[in-house]
Amino acid sequence: MAEKTTILGGGAMATACAILLAEDSNRQVTIWARNEAYAAEMQETRENKRLLPGIFLPDGVQVTSDIEEAVKGANFYVASIPSKHLRESLSVIGDSLRPGIPVISVIKGMEAETFLRPSQIIIDVIGDRPVISLSGPSHAEEIAKRLPASVVAACEDLELGQQVQRMFTTERFRVYTNKDLVGTELAGALKNIIGIAAGISDGLGYGDNAKSAMITRGIVEISRFGVELGADPNTFAGLAGIGDLITTCVSPHGRNRAVGERLGQGETLTEILNTMQAVAEGITTTAAIHGLAKSKEIEMPIVDEVYEVLFHEKSPLEATDSLMCRPLKEE
Amino acid sequence: MAEKTTILGGGAMATACAILLAEDSNRQVTIWARNEAYAAEMQETRENKRLLPGIFLPDGVQVTSDIEEAVKGANFYVASIPSKHLRESLSVIGDSLRPGIPVISVIKGMEAETFLRPSQIIIDVIGDRPVISLSGPSHAEEIAKRLPASVVAACEDLELGQQVQRMFTTERFRVYTNKDLVGTELAGALKNIIGIAAGISDGLGYGDNAKSAMITRGIVEISRFGVELGADPNTFAGLAGIGDLITTCVSPHGRNRAVGERLGQGETLTEILNTMQAVAEGITTTAAIHGLAKSKEIEMPIVDEVYEVLFHEKSPLEATDSLMCRPLKEE
Repeated sequence: MAEKTTILGGGAMATACAILLAEDSNRQVTIWARNEAYAAEMQETRENKRLLPGIFLPDGVQVTSDIEEAVKGANFYVASIPSKHLRESLSVIGDSLRPGIPVISVIKGMEAETFLRPSQIIIDVIGDRPVISLSGPSHAEEIAKRLPASVVAACEDLELGQQVQRMFTTERFRVYTNKDLVGTELAGALKNIIGIAAGISDGLGYGDNAKSAMITRGIVEISRFGVELGADPNTFAGLAGIGDLITTCVSPHGRNRAVGERLGQGETLTEILNTMQAVAEGITTTAAIHGLAKSKEIEMPIVDEVYEVLFHEKSPLEATDSLMCRPLKEE
Repeated sequence: MAEKTTILGGGAMATACAILLAEDSNRQVTIWARNEAYAAEMQETRENKRLLPGIFLPDGVQVTSDIEEAVKGANFYVASIPSKHLRESLSVIGDSLRPGIPVISVIKGMEAETFLRPSQIIIDVIGDRPVISLSGPSHAEEIAKRLPASVVAACEDLELGQQVQRMFTTERFRVYTNKDLVGTELAGALKNIIGIAAGISDGLGYGDNAKSAMITRGIVEISRFGVELGADPNTFAGLAGIGDLITTCVSPHGRNRAVGERLGQGETLTEILNTMQAVAEGITTTAAIHGLAKSKEIEMPIVDEVYEVLFHEKSPLEATDSLMCRPLKEE
């Protein structure tokens, strides 16, 4: 019998995952999209018109808003729901999801109030089960266009990680395994704070030297924080760590970098929020991580400065100066 | 008595170093430029017209082509000479350089025939003395414009490293110390190979995912090689490692990235060399490191593919495919 994978979510990354998984013609792939009209349109037109215009779904991909139909017979779920809607969305469909079925999460972020990582939220809402985090530099649009990308499948159970590795690998999509779920998920959440910092540097008109240093020192902070929370430091030197962080800080399309750039150009957070459609996750992540780092006495100078710029109207120029004028030290 | 530093070399980085050092008004700074007419013009116009037009030298900086005058009374030399001219240039002026005076090297590269690092060439030609490598993401033009940058001063003698740290630090130029001279110099040479690979990715029209993965996997290879040669793995996660590599791979101005981009667009190495004024160092470095890695049995898949594209006309597309289709593995 053919394997079936159900993708929970109808966004750009959900669609990109469907395209990857459908390269194996022995696999059934069903996208569950919550919005009935949008699901019907995708199924009919074979296109995710709003988010990935011009890219067509392979024949093997089905799209439905009927959760029972979507999950029927599936032996893997892929969770591709923004972290801030994850708990609520899973609560709505939880009764239809079978116990024990492993979930591959492509979600990056952290629950602001609880500090829970995506895999913890998933287990909290739909019950204990294996969760694999697929993470790394992975703009959905590039993946959907079949441009090359490399990511990690992070899972405490190496065999399961290898199974996910084989599921997702194509000629243009390379998957490494990694056993550090905690570090992989933390890296995916914290990178957005450094993305804002990199944007501030751009907004101030600084150059490549400043931004590369920000990325390098940024991953040092993220790693320091992650290790305190039980992560493997090697994760932060890998695709889910520095790899994803580079894309976040360098790509002109990133929402978090864009927020930073506007801050650097002199706008206040209120002005920016008033004109943004979707809130950049890094803003709430900064508030959460800043508090957590303070309570655990973890030194995070870049996070501190981003926090001050976002929430206390510290001028970006002063914030950068504070970073540059800290006591001289060993690397 | 005022301290005096002599900068050996009249290029963009030499000029940027002079501008940094002259921020301390107690320090005399003299640039030695080999070309008499160019040195006289710089001294007269206060501008390095060809390489840093529009940026003016502070009053405290002197420029001369008279090596005796240049080095008289200096207690530090800064070496800023392209690695392929280093041996010959130092041989010419060696008799005028005092024994034992420490040299701060801002040179990145490696001698192709001998595999010697810049500090080793310096000692080989002008005698044993302390050498400090100042390295990291440091485009000279940005430094000269006083845009922020952060680098490492690498030196086995921490106290001397700290002295160099204090010499160079300004409000906009932050210096960390690091005791790994070997790793710092190797990172500075090998980054140019990965810069070519990143350019190939750009030339093929690949996106941010592919390039971030190339940088991430690139530093893994560089680190593997460096550790075999006695370097500290932490160096490669720092400013002289991943930091400098990011700038090399991302900045549109890099010569090595540009060579890769043209290869990716279908030009051959011969065609590129026929139209380039200055040879990109990464080309000779690729040949040297490829041979050295083979003889030491160090696995360097990206270096291997860049070597094949450069010297055996392997198509860039095939080279990328080879990288993506290697056996699946742990990160």
